[in-house]
Amino acid sequence: MELWFTEKHTDNVNFSIKVDRQVYSGQSEFQRIDIFDSLEFGRFLTLDGYMMLTEKDEFIYHEMIVHVPMNVLPHVKKVLVIGGGDGGAVRELVRYPEIERIDLVEIDEQVVEVCKKYLPQTAGKLDDPRVSVHYADGLKFVRSRKEEYDLIIVDSTDPFGPGEGLFTREFYGNCFKALTETGAMVNQHESPFYPVDAVAMQRAHKRIIDSFPISRVYQAHIPTYPSGHWLFGFASKKYHPVEDYHAAGWSARGFRTKYYNDKIHVGAFALPNYVKELLEEME
Amino acid sequence: MELWFTEKHTDNVNFSIKVDRQVYSGQSEFQRIDIFDSLEFGRFLTLDGYMMLTEKDEFIYHEMIVHVPMNVLPHVKKVLVIGGGDGGAVRELVRYPEIERIDLVEIDEQVVEVCKKYLPQTAGKLDDPRVSVHYADGLKFVRSRKEEYDLIIVDSTDPFGPGEGLFTREFYGNCFKALTETGAMVNQHESPFYPVDAVAMQRAHKRIIDSFPISRVYQAHIPTYPSGHWLFGFASKKYHPVEDYHAAGWSARGFRTKYYNDKIHVGAFALPNYVKELLEEME
Repeated sequence: MELWFTEKHTDNVNFSIKVDRQVYSGQSEFQRIDIFDSLEFGRFLTLDGYMMLTEKDEFIYHEMIVHVPMNVLPHVKKVLVIGGGDGGAVRELVRYPEIERIDLVEIDEQVVEVCKKYLPQTAGKLDDPRVSVHYADGLKFVRSRKEEYDLIIVDSTDPFGPGEGLFTREFYGNCFKALTETGAMVNQHESPFYPVDAVAMQRAHKRIIDSFPISRVYQAHIPTYPSGHWLFGFASKKYHPVEDYHAAGWSARGFRTKYYNDKIHVGAFALPNYVKELLEEME
Repeated sequence: MELWFTEKHTDNVNFSIKVDRQVYSGQSEFQRIDIFDSLEFGRFLTLDGYMMLTEKDEFIYHEMIVHVPMNVLPHVKKVLVIGGGDGGAVRELVRYPEIERIDLVEIDEQVVEVCKKYLPQTAGKLDDPRVSVHYADGLKFVRSRKEEYDLIIVDSTDPFGPGEGLFTREFYGNCFKALTETGAMVNQHESPFYPVDAVAMQRAHKRIIDSFPISRVYQAHIPTYPSGHWLFGFASKKYHPVEDYHAAGWSARGFRTKYYNDKIHVGAFALPNYVKELLEEME
């Protein structure tokens, strides 16, 4: 027998992974949660049938969403992660000894439980003593916060379903308010390649530039996401992600990473012309 | 009805494109040639069932294989393109007025004829008066050439089937010999992500560094190639692709491009750690 997981990247493009076996399937209050084992990508997690992470390439997404802001902002003590119930962003954050507290706000407790059980490589640091997990709607959670966080990481699902509120103008405005005066927000920013994703990417960008004085987009090669060309947004009150980047600081840490490095930090902000044009249409 | 083209990216990963209709299918002396129309990617060409180019994203590959070397090497008058029967590399080359002659060596005449007929966006400049098309084996063609070309572009298929010889030590050594003393060779270098491709990439890299004093690898986001993370090799006798890059020269030209730009030139050489490690294993 052959078992294949297929994700529609668009109505006209399918990406299919040969599955060894399904190890978990459940329906939470918010979404369907599935875990599969595969030869090519190891274990992988899908939510409502959309690929969230694979053991083989999740390091790319999580390194890029954490190490880029952490090597721009000078004094990060308190971090808010919205979404990210798989624990991958937290795993990279807890490597920084100067971080004193991480609030993880995940709407779906079942995602956290499933990831802790089935994806320990990714979720294994959620029990770090500096981490507090809040099962709440990120949109509501940030409303009441004021100048509290040095960094907010929006590690959301796509801009439909449970993650939809995390792409709204109200949410970005509340994140701005919840940040300290030198703070920044990083978010997963969809892909520029397929028009169906690019429209969401453009809309998010428009809303972020309306809320933050500094806003730049950076990219990574993530083979299991649609088109493999994935974007992140860096929205900041004071620091510029390239001009204020401290290469020496990163080198001095001696962290071992599999994707992120000194040159990648700068190179990731070098966007192709067609992507720049999509963003500039919104500016 | 639904018609789908599926390419196996590995034995365990399929990439499928919904096809509107097949517009050409033929068997040449060397390979099977197919052309399809699709909603998502426009028209696309496959050889022996492997994706060669789509109208939607071929600009990425062709801009990156041409403009990177053309903005490093100072006096390019004579260029050899090996493979590249679709004409995409030639289209980008003929934009440079200082190029006096382009020899295109394509083993399969039928590829050129089919591309001229069905893919005019890509093949439309093959009739430029500076272009000479030779229907020959690239491996044999370069054997007899000595210090003749300022730039060699190896726009090959994958390292099996008709393209296999273009990944051999003998071929790279003959390219070195065929280049002028300041010349460079650029080649499509496969992908680092899937082990089956990465092994071919590593083997090619080993052979190139054994033949050229300067050898660097750069990358682009090409969504229709396996993993979307595609590499190119820059192998050079004298000039370094980043240190000797002339940003001012590129800006002065005023060329309109959809992917390549000043920052991309440098950023493309910023490789992820895992790719650097695969390459360093060979060095």
